[in-house]
Amino acid sequence: MVPSIETIASLGENESLRRTISRLNLATNALVGPGDDSAVVAAPDGRFCVTTDTMVEGHDFRLDWSSGFDLGWKAIASNVADVAAMGAKPTALVVALCAPGNTEVAWLEAFADGLREACLALAPEAAVVGGDLTTAQQVFIAVTAHGDLEGRQPVLRSGARPGDVLAVGGTLGKAAAGLALLESGNRDAIASYDELVGVQLRPQPPINLGVAAGLAGATAMLDLSDGLSRDLARLCKASGVSANIESNALQGYQAMLEQAAQAIGANEVNWVLHGGEDHSLLATFSPEVQLPRGFKRIGTIESAGEPSLRLDGHPLEIGGWDSTR
Amino acid sequence: MVPSIETIASLGENESLRRTISRLNLATNALVGPGDDSAVVAAPDGRFCVTTDTMVEGHDFRLDWSSGFDLGWKAIASNVADVAAMGAKPTALVVALCAPGNTEVAWLEAFADGLREACLALAPEAAVVGGDLTTAQQVFIAVTAHGDLEGRQPVLRSGARPGDVLAVGGTLGKAAAGLALLESGNRDAIASYDELVGVQLRPQPPINLGVAAGLAGATAMLDLSDGLSRDLARLCKASGVSANIESNALQGYQAMLEQAAQAIGANEVNWVLHGGEDHSLLATFSPEVQLPRGFKRIGTIESAGEPSLRLDGHPLEIGGWDSTR
Repeated sequence: MVPSIETIASLGENESLRRTISRLNLATNALVGPGDDSAVVAAPDGRFCVTTDTMVEGHDFRLDWSSGFDLGWKAIASNVADVAAMGAKPTALVVALCAPGNTEVAWLEAFADGLREACLALAPEAAVVGGDLTTAQQVFIAVTAHGDLEGRQPVLRSGARPGDVLAVGGTLGKAAAGLALLESGNRDAIASYDELVGVQLRPQPPINLGVAAGLAGATAMLDLSDGLSRDLARLCKASGVSANIESNALQGYQAMLEQAAQAIGANEVNWVLHGGEDHSLLATFSPEVQLPRGFKRIGTIESAGEPSLRLDGHPLEIGGWDSTR
Repeated sequence: MVPSIETIASLGENESLRRTISRLNLATNALVGPGDDSAVVAAPDGRFCVTTDTMVEGHDFRLDWSSGFDLGWKAIASNVADVAAMGAKPTALVVALCAPGNTEVAWLEAFADGLREACLALAPEAAVVGGDLTTAQQVFIAVTAHGDLEGRQPVLRSGARPGDVLAVGGTLGKAAAGLALLESGNRDAIASYDELVGVQLRPQPPINLGVAAGLAGATAMLDLSDGLSRDLARLCKASGVSANIESNALQGYQAMLEQAAQAIGANEVNWVLHGGEDHSLLATFSPEVQLPRGFKRIGTIESAGEPSLRLDGHPLEIGGWDSTR
């Protein structure tokens, strides 16, 4: 009997992979692309940045909320943000996908479309150059992204100094708002604030701001994956400094979320301070530096010593996301 | 209540990762190691090789057969083999691990020990430079490995030419024999042939033969992950050639497996022809070339045209492993 719906199991690994690969954009940096034991990628700088991240069904996403396209998009976005957070330009990615054997190939093709469109939108010189496909009970996505520093020094988490300006490039709290809307099950609210849901499902990290921050001499940088408070605490710990966030500077971010919060009885302040998955860039700059266009000042780095977070001078508890709990 | 056994969930992501990272060997090529958004790895050649592969509980391994150490070892071995198969020297890896929250940290530490020991044994200049840890229902391991071509051209699958010698570096059929022994449940046989079980659990691919093959001018190469017949068919298809295996040349591999096969009523010829997971190297060389020490001739590449496999001139069916079925 010929199955009426093509699945990964009915087509087999080779054909399923071929269908997927044919939908990807081409990497300008790939000297050898998909199909051999390894890809070969240009590293004109003589170094490369590399980062890896996983997304697990039920833990990081739900298949009834995220389409295949959404997941492909998010897998790219969250990983190129980690490359951008070093001040590097994304060049190439490899993607490992595990999915149940009865997954429709149409879903896989939509996933590949999401990979392609996210590369083209966020990091047009980057592309998927290799991958792996296997079956599992859960959908599991592991992406490794690479970047080129173009001769610059990498921007580490550890370089923030007292007196530096603390700044954010990108959205703050929108992805958390989108998640809360989905979790609320409130269809009217979800429909009314679909832009926020869209940021949760298909984040739009400002990848080009990573290079801009590096060129401007950012002293430290990381990507906001687990929430402002938690990620800022990481930056402070790595740098051995404290930080003070100015609540005035957060009002603009909160204002954009206020109505959605009211609609589902939530607090937009928590989304901005502790909400993850925007994959925006948090960076510190010497006070003499003019912030690159797209970065907004939200506070300052304070005295060295035991790292601590403050909001308008008062202690700020760390919220956000620990991926193992 | 304080839990009596430390688990990933009880310790949290940060502390669990810290424990793991502290057990890894240091990468001589890592300019920035674990702990930032990305690692930074030297690529003196101005290019890098990159390959990714996943291992899924229940699909690729069983936790009652493989220890944490075994899985860490195998994750490294199977991935550096894909780098070696390009003729490159492994330099750096990133590892993503998903495991149930109640996984003991002692298991995680053994996994890290396996990562370290496999690097030191198989590719001593390589090390894990970054990773990710999250919880899932199944254990998933995704590894991305990188290599340096040291100025050489990559050895692709597509370069085999009629008249070339077909050669293998490393074991053939041992990993499949080990798997069959485990599957037999025959404790006496498992104990008697523990070397074969060991190759299944902790493969020993001859990583240095990848560079040796590249230096000797290998025309094509791949790593034997899915079995000689299936992987040779891939090489033939990519190169547009046919291949003939000489059964005489396989007798040495079979002889080492004969007793184990008898003990569990299996056929060692199938293991040698179709068994996967040895991660040995299959390469082709011009007939004028002296094979690098460690490679053994097993056949020849024949006329171009519709790719086909033969054994002593007779058609050979493809066996082995399709990871989606």
